[in-house]
Amino acid sequence: MEQKKSQEGLNVKKNENFSEWYTQVTEKAEILDIRLGIKGFTIIRPWGAGIIENMFKFFENELQKNGHKPTFMPSVISKENLTKESEHVKGFTPQVFWLKDINEGQELALRPTSETVYTPMFKLWIRSWRDLPMKLYQRAHVFRLDTKATRPLIRGREFIWIECHDAFKSKEDAEKQVQEDINVTEKVMHQIFGVPFLPMKRPEWDKFAGAEYTVGSDCFMPDGKLIQQPSTHLMGQKFSKAFGAEFENENGKKEFLWTTAYGPAISRILVSVITTHGDDSGLILPYSLSPVQTVIVPIFTTKNKEKVIKKSEEISSKLKKLGIRTELDSDSEKRPGEKYHLWELKGVPFRIEIGEKEIEKKEVTFFTRDTKEKTNMKITDLKKIPSLGKEFDKRLLEKADNSFKNRIEEGNSEKEIKKILDTGKVAKVNFCSTDKEGVECAQIVEKRLGGEVRGTLANSNEKSNGKCPFCGKPAKKVVYIGRSY
Amino acid sequence: MEQKKSQEGLNVKKNENFSEWYTQVTEKAEILDIRLGIKGFTIIRPWGAGIIENMFKFFENELQKNGHKPTFMPSVISKENLTKESEHVKGFTPQVFWLKDINEGQELALRPTSETVYTPMFKLWIRSWRDLPMKLYQRAHVFRLDTKATRPLIRGREFIWIECHDAFKSKEDAEKQVQEDINVTEKVMHQIFGVPFLPMKRPEWDKFAGAEYTVGSDCFMPDGKLIQQPSTHLMGQKFSKAFGAEFENENGKKEFLWTTAYGPAISRILVSVITTHGDDSGLILPYSLSPVQTVIVPIFTTKNKEKVIKKSEEISSKLKKLGIRTELDSDSEKRPGEKYHLWELKGVPFRIEIGEKEIEKKEVTFFTRDTKEKTNMKITDLKKIPSLGKEFDKRLLEKADNSFKNRIEEGNSEKEIKKILDTGKVAKVNFCSTDKEGVECAQIVEKRLGGEVRGTLANSNEKSNGKCPFCGKPAKKVVYIGRSY
Repeated sequence: MEQKKSQEGLNVKKNENFSEWYTQVTEKAEILDIRLGIKGFTIIRPWGAGIIENMFKFFENELQKNGHKPTFMPSVISKENLTKESEHVKGFTPQVFWLKDINEGQELALRPTSETVYTPMFKLWIRSWRDLPMKLYQRAHVFRLDTKATRPLIRGREFIWIECHDAFKSKEDAEKQVQEDINVTEKVMHQIFGVPFLPMKRPEWDKFAGAEYTVGSDCFMPDGKLIQQPSTHLMGQKFSKAFGAEFENENGKKEFLWTTAYGPAISRILVSVITTHGDDSGLILPYSLSPVQTVIVPIFTTKNKEKVIKKSEEISSKLKKLGIRTELDSDSEKRPGEKYHLWELKGVPFRIEIGEKEIEKKEVTFFTRDTKEKTNMKITDLKKIPSLGKEFDKRLLEKADNSFKNRIEEGNSEKEIKKILDTGKVAKVNFCSTDKEGVECAQIVEKRLGGEVRGTLANSNEKSNGKCPFCGKPAKKVVYIGRSY
Repeated sequence: MEQKKSQEGLNVKKNENFSEWYTQVTEKAEILDIRLGIKGFTIIRPWGAGIIENMFKFFENELQKNGHKPTFMPSVISKENLTKESEHVKGFTPQVFWLKDINEGQELALRPTSETVYTPMFKLWIRSWRDLPMKLYQRAHVFRLDTKATRPLIRGREFIWIECHDAFKSKEDAEKQVQEDINVTEKVMHQIFGVPFLPMKRPEWDKFAGAEYTVGSDCFMPDGKLIQQPSTHLMGQKFSKAFGAEFENENGKKEFLWTTAYGPAISRILVSVITTHGDDSGLILPYSLSPVQTVIVPIFTTKNKEKVIKKSEEISSKLKKLGIRTELDSDSEKRPGEKYHLWELKGVPFRIEIGEKEIEKKEVTFFTRDTKEKTNMKITDLKKIPSLGKEFDKRLLEKADNSFKNRIEEGNSEKEIKKILDTGKVAKVNFCSTDKEGVECAQIVEKRLGGEVRGTLANSNEKSNGKCPFCGKPAKKVVYIGRSY
């Protein structure tokens, strides 16, 4: 029994070998499977897909509230359209999958992103300022022939995302949208999923191919490296000019559209949910996201099985009526201990254990995944589960926020910055420039420290002072330097 | 004004020129757009995408109730796997899109369907009968390089579907699943979407490539031709043998899995929703599916605008609180008549017109899309909308059922069958055989009548009698012959 247990459970600690922990937890908690053996393409199993479905709901709900409407665009893009915006083509064409067959004379690529599909349609759908803003989104799979090492969900060749493409009548409106996008990331990824982030206005050399500027969301992995989560881009008039997408403004004059794009990669955000909250026993899923919020494990002998199962079913249907996603694990082949172990590995927030003793006392044993506390709870008190769920998520959020805060430190010299990075943190640094002038210093950061200038804090006017520790010129910006995935 | 109206509205009658009606209604009601100009790939606009989202919800809800779990499989399949099952490869490889770049030595195709992805995973995930049944599904886009003429949503090269792939321990269990799949089509597509169908067990020569048998759902288009909607397939052990997917049965012996597949093509079912219910003024959407269930059109002058808009907003928020998908169309640029016209074209079930007169009487003018009746309704009675919605959908269903019933006629000679087909109906015919023996007669049906033997009625033991009208041999089957898309 014990041997079997250790085979099924994790045999590595999260903080000792994060990389191996991630591999084991995603496989053993049945999030994904890579055994199909196509580099960069991952199978997402029901437990992972269930979490993703819930993530989609929260994001889509928020986007719809903000006036976004759904669409379904083709998965392919013609070469003609894909190559219309010159910076975009430089950035993306080396990364696309081309189809072998020519479709009626057209060369087609699998979409890496869909600016070059939405912009020509904006041109057809929008005539005047009265049609604006136009805010569209789609759930989509996108494809990038990334040549670097792939890691399941972290870096792959196909990923699942939502992409929003919005058109406006002025730069001001478009910039407000960039802000709204950052707020959506804050409301959904941070407040609901419990994953804190640094909203980073990327340096000039690190923006989206074709954008005026990009704000990325940087999240910490347990090893202190950063992973980029949703980014939002002010495209300005670059794509609308490339596609001739004009509108008639309030003065009756033709003007090019102002566009933005926002792309929460749901399959990658799942990585941050897993790695932010999990522990040495496995996943810990936010109550809001877990496919099963409460699992019921009946404890029975052959003699009292019927009675215990009956009571468990009663409780299960009661919880379901309250809208709690509930699973009754009444499998007779497994011992209760094995079940506890499995559901802890899978990260289910609450577990109800119920046997004859509990039935007599009209109570259950109630286990909470994050604190690992077991308490006795009156059956009549089970209606409190949704509010306990809220507290559960609040605890995860607070824990993540505390860890996040402790991971940012000021660094004033190369030596200090190196030390900060080596201890798995991000350095806040007075830096020469995030325009072209800063490129050389950014290269020093990369070569000598293995780090990256991730950008300046969006929505904040952090005042720089002193000199850039790399070139000695006056510091114009406060940047954040970290190592990344 | 009138001129503008006729430009925007339909200028063709559904029963006079269905093909043109379909083109106009899908374009003018903003369901889709084909102007991206990639043959076989269609853009689905927000109005169409909103309907599709609702269709997904009903199907997924039903599938989950039946124990199906979500997954996300790669959009690509390796050549090695795609070509493992010999009949499958014959049926599908001429139809697939291959990728140009070789992915680490593997040739990859865009999935036309995913049996060859799920079966090798069943092999890894299923050890014994205790793991069965395993019922999985995914929302997916699939790709088929169909060389025939394409028509938006009807026949294309990319479509949006749900595919279910299930594994069982016995043929009996697998056949029960085929029945359950037919029931899902009945419950969702027929009862909820109001689209009746003939569940047709396909002849031997028309089954899914690799299946033991196929049950397709045939729906009528307004021109009397049939369109295939969800089909379900008993794969038997064909795929499990090709992939060596075994399990240990209750006697401890190895056995190949029994598998089934079910594929509701949501983007194609949308065609049947549009064509079954629409009329000469445009779409008529079921209350259950319409992105907007009630539209409010305020009628105001410059003088009373504020008052009327205020009351309209009150009503709007009241309806939203009742869970009714409501849109307030308070655009000042358009006249009420234009708005009525547009929302009728888009098929919104209910419209509330409200002006100063109505406000004084504490009522609204209430328009119902299918009957085109206008009545006065007390504002306090608006809470009845959800139940009026149910009645609305019931009327659509009854109307569709009546039309459906009248479209099936018995035909006993080639001449009679031809006449039935020529009048836009389906002929019920005593036919020699749906096995190989029947192939020649089926070819006669195709060549001389432009029709197809669609199959025998699933779930029914219709007794054949007499002789096959084509070869004169004793009739073993009652088949349905129709023309099709």
